[in-house]
Parts: sequence; structure tokens; C-alpha cells
Amino acid sequence: MTIFNYGLIPMFLSLAATSVRAEPPAARKKVVLVIHGGAGVRASAKMTPEVKARYETALRDSLKAGYAILKSDRGTSLDAVEAAIKVLEDSPLFNAGKGAVFTHDGRNELDASIMEGKEKKAGAVAGVTRTKNPISAARAVMEKSPHVMMTGEGADRFAIASGVEEVSPVYFWTEQRWKALNDVLREEELLKKGRKSETAKPEHPYYGTVGAVALDRHGNLAAGTSTGGMTNKRHGRIGDSPIIGAGTYAENGACGVSCTGHGEIFIRNAVAYDVVALMKYGQERSVVEAAKKVLAKLPTEEGGVGGLIALDNQGNAAMEFDGDGMYRGTITEQGEIDVAIFR
Amino acid sequence: MTIFNYGLIPMFLSLAATSVRAEPPAARKKVVLVIHGGAGVRASAKMTPEVKARYETALRDSLKAGYAILKSDRGTSLDAVEAAIKVLEDSPLFNAGKGAVFTHDGRNELDASIMEGKEKKAGAVAGVTRTKNPISAARAVMEKSPHVMMTGEGADRFAIASGVEEVSPVYFWTEQRWKALNDVLREEELLKKGRKSETAKPEHPYYGTVGAVALDRHGNLAAGTSTGGMTNKRHGRIGDSPIIGAGTYAENGACGVSCTGHGEIFIRNAVAYDVVALMKYGQERSVVEAAKKVLAKLPTEEGGVGGLIALDNQGNAAMEFDGDGMYRGTITEQGEIDVAIFR
Repeated sequence: MTIFNYGLIPMFLSLAATSVRAEPPAARKKVVLVIHGGAGVRASAKMTPEVKARYETALRDSLKAGYAILKSDRGTSLDAVEAAIKVLEDSPLFNAGKGAVFTHDGRNELDASIMEGKEKKAGAVAGVTRTKNPISAARAVMEKSPHVMMTGEGADRFAIASGVEEVSPVYFWTEQRWKALNDVLREEELLKKGRKSETAKPEHPYYGTVGAVALDRHGNLAAGTSTGGMTNKRHGRIGDSPIIGAGTYAENGACGVSCTGHGEIFIRNAVAYDVVALMKYGQERSVVEAAKKVLAKLPTEEGGVGGLIALDNQGNAAMEFDGDGMYRGTITEQGEIDVAIFR
Repeated sequence: MTIFNYGLIPMFLSLAATSVRAEPPAARKKVVLVIHGGAGVRASAKMTPEVKARYETALRDSLKAGYAILKSDRGTSLDAVEAAIKVLEDSPLFNAGKGAVFTHDGRNELDASIMEGKEKKAGAVAGVTRTKNPISAARAVMEKSPHVMMTGEGADRFAIASGVEEVSPVYFWTEQRWKALNDVLREEELLKKGRKSETAKPEHPYYGTVGAVALDRHGNLAAGTSTGGMTNKRHGRIGDSPIIGAGTYAENGACGVSCTGHGEIFIRNAVAYDVVALMKYGQERSVVEAAKKVLAKLPTEEGGVGGLIALDNQGNAAMEFDGDGMYRGTITEQGEIDVAIFR
């Protein structure tokens, strides 16, 4: 009997260890803020340690900015989402704010949306060109207009009149994104002439959107998403990021969601709200399982369709994606940060 | 025993008669096309028989246009939805196409979306000003662009280049809508000066959107919605009509949906997709019950929040609204038309 017992204990310990390792470390503690900086990242082999470190630092800075608000007495999830996203918008690394990609016409047209889960209020802007932080413009629409969604010049005018910082459209010019547009345009020209591609395959044109979902001490969820859209998009194209229900959704009884990926597919499948609907109506009560199920239903594409982050009202975070990686991170109630890029 | 039997039969017959009377007549046969011309109609006492007859004729013409396609061998639900909506857009009676309301700046900015339920392809335009039939522009985005949603000048340019009929923006000027804008602007001025209202209460500013859902002989569903938005809307405001998931959705396994009402509330609640989600994930398998449940969850407003039409893949139609009326109608497989305005 003694021998038999000794035989079982190591087996039990080894099983327990496996099950702990299978869970992401942050999932064991209450997450209060989860962020993403887009899916569709380069293969890990192509990313230098220096570039990787820059991305990780930006993700940490974003998490810290949101956490500073959440741990204060009057900090709301809405404030934390806006603060975390502003850090990512101000970085040239992500396709949002400063680092936005160029449209076919060589412009930067930015989209963002924000939603709070208590009263399900929401705001969104699409195609703004003069608003430094589109996420703040989205929040102004939510809080200071009777509308949910505004586009173009009307959205810029409204945001700036509401006190959101104005910049010249040239603020959004970055060499890296300008080169990316020119690469794509050159490819198009070659294709038209029936010649073979000269440039290395450009980065996935859809990805790089940023987003955040936060849970505050009042139990309120909020979610937001911000993007520069897709390189070489035609004038006036709107992706999923500013669409409530597609790119962003928050409902206290279920979860908050922010998506990134091939926007058209996310709109057609109402992805953000679908995660919420699965938790509300379906048999799926786990936010991780709901997120996995919704992503698994999307069509497959070379390089992946995209990903999403979600956070439920118990502090369980999901960070799901179908490609090689997604810039992502969480911070717990205790301030423990976890950031990752690849699988 | 004989006496006992005789007593039961009349009771059974009377129950059966009651249950038949409780259902709308069209629901007993397979509906192939259901349309709406907006909720928020005037109280029945204020509508002359002549005006009522004009609305009913327009609804019948729309149903006939869609039906002519559905009964032909190659007729698709997508063609039927487009044809039915074009009739309503070309009528000055509804707030879509020709009869669109004016923005705060005295412009007509039109929105529309369309979706087919087999592959869940979708297209939408927002803020177009030079496209005669916005529903055809939405279809062009769906079929001829890699995008789902386009706005403003970019959307107009794309639609016209794709062969959709162009008109001068003055085509959309109608005396009735111009007067409505001026009434609202006068109200705003009076309110600013702290004086009492002079004009009679204007029509509900949100309503009048048109929409259609069709089921073809291949079992494919399609849905579409078109609107002029809300009177006095600020430049660049987008309502629910061009938002896939909010104003329009179609999924063969569940139903097609087109909404009308206070757009901001419909966006925040992802109303069109919510009906689909309830049927897919919830315990609600009836399209009428799903539509009722989704509408009942929306906040209440004076005059009503709005309404929606839905059609499932068995030909069961829902036409639900919370105000005094909704312009609406159905046509069955056999060509039987039923139109209604008030409760």
C-alpha cells in the first residue's frame, strides 16, 4: 500500500503542474486591463530583439497608464481604456494615431470607437484626419453629442470643438508607413503590367489596430478600439474598428471586447457583439471559450484573419488570434504586467 | 358519453377560431417578401384617407416589384430586396432616396446597407449625396469592392464608377422635408431665446427609413435598409441603417432583419444581429418572438423607439414596432399582398 501511494503522488503532482502550465499566468489573477496592438505581426524570426523590446515597452507603458487610473479612487474603466489607447496612438509603432497607415490617396484617415458596459453608451468616429487621438474624439461623440457615430470633416469639427487636441494632418506622416504604401502601389503597377513582384511581401495590409478593455472597482466594463485602417484603402472605406458590435462592444452582464483583423470579415460577422451574445444566450459562460468559438467560425486566410481581446466582469481575460502573433498584454488588480507578441 | 363529446367539440372549435384570429393573416402562408417604410407615423386621426391611400399604393408597388423578381426562375432575394427598396427610395413619401430629410446644413446625406444570408456578404454606404438609389450603391460596394462600408465622396465616386445612376444633389429637394428642417431650426432658435414653441410638434425626427427582407426559392435570405437619416442631423452623423448588425443583417440559418427607429439606440444594442443571435443561441426559435424580445429590451421613448421587420427561412414574417404605427407590408408565395400602417 505504501509503495502504491508513493507511485500515485508524483503522478498527481505532474498532472497538476501540467494544468498550471497550460493556463496563461495572468488568467489566475483578476485582470483589470487587457490591451492589444494588433494581430498579423511579422514572423518572430524577422523581428530583431531591439524592435521586440520597443513594442514590449510601448505595451507596458499603455498598461501602466490605464492601471494608474484604475487604482485611483475615482478611476473608471472608461478613463482607463482611453488612457491606455492614447499611449498606443501616440506611439509610431502601431497602426493607430501617430503610426496610422496611408490610404490609396496618400492620406491618413483614422477610425475609433469606445463603449461602456453599464448603460451601453457608445461613441465612434471614422475618417478623421485632424484629431490627434481618435479615441478621445470617439469619447466626445459619446458624451457630448446625441449621436453614436460621426464621420469625416463633421467628426473632426465636432471633436475639436469639444476640446480634443487638433493636429495638422502631416502629424500622421511616418517614413515606415509611407514606404509601405509605396510598396503596395508599386506592386499594383507591376501586377497591371503583368510583371512579377519585386519587393518582399509587404506586411499584412489589415493589421495593427489597437484596443483595450478595462474593469473598474465598481464592476463596470469599458472597451475601445482605434486604427489607421488598411494600407492603400480607398477613400471613404470604413473597417470594423469604429463599428459598435463589429470592432468594439461592452456589456456589464457579459464582457467587453476589442477586435483587430480583416475588418470586412469582422463587420459581416458582428464579431464583438457575437462574443457577448454567446455568453448571454448560449451555453458558453466562459469568456475565453466564447472568444475562441467566435474566432473559429471566421473564414481562414493566409496569415490569419485577426484576433480579439475580451474581459468579463470577474476579471477573466481572453486574448485570441489565429495568425503568428498579436501584440498584447494584461495587468492584474495587483499591478502584475504580462506582455507577449508571438504564440 | 355522447353528451360529453358534444360539449367538447364546440369548445375546441372556438379555441381554434381564437388562435387563428390572433395571428396576422399573412403569417399563415409563406411570406417571400416583407417591407417597411419606417415607424413613427403620424397618429391615424391626422392622416387623411387620400394620404393613407398614397402610402398604401407605394407599399403595394414595392411588394409587386420584389415579387416579380422572386417568381421568375432566376430571381434572387438580393435582386428582390434591391427592387423593392428602389420603389420606396423613388417615392417622395418615405425618408430615403427622393424623400430624404435634410441635415442641419441643409443637405441630403443618404445611408443604405444590404446583406445576403448565404455567404453573409454585405455592402453599405453612408453620407452619399449624388447617388439616386443608395441601396444600389450599397450593393455595388458589396459586389464590386473588397470593402463592406464606404462613406461620403469616396462612396459616391465608387458607386457612380460602378454604374449606379448619378443625380444632382438637388434631386433630393422636396418642399415637405425642407419645411420640416425649417420648423426644427425655428424651434431651436426659439429655445435658445427661451421662448415657447410656435409650431405644432414636428414629426418624429428619426423615422421614415425603408427596408425589405426577402426569401427566394433557393432558400436564400437577403435584407436591406435605406434612409435619409434624421432631420437636422449634424454633418457626418451615421445612424443604424448602414451598419451591418445594427440596421441590417441576414443569415440563412436564422433570419433576415431590417430596422427603423432611433438609430443611436439600435447601434448600441446591435439590434439586427441580436434577433439573429437570439434565434441561433437562445431558446427562441420563432422569429416573431425573437423580434418582440429584442424590441422589448430597448429603452422606452415618447412616440416609440422604432421597429423592425424580419423573415426566417420558412417564410415566417415579423413586423414589430413600439409606437402608433409602421408602414409595412408582406407578399406571400401566392402573390397575396397585405399592407398596414397603424396598429
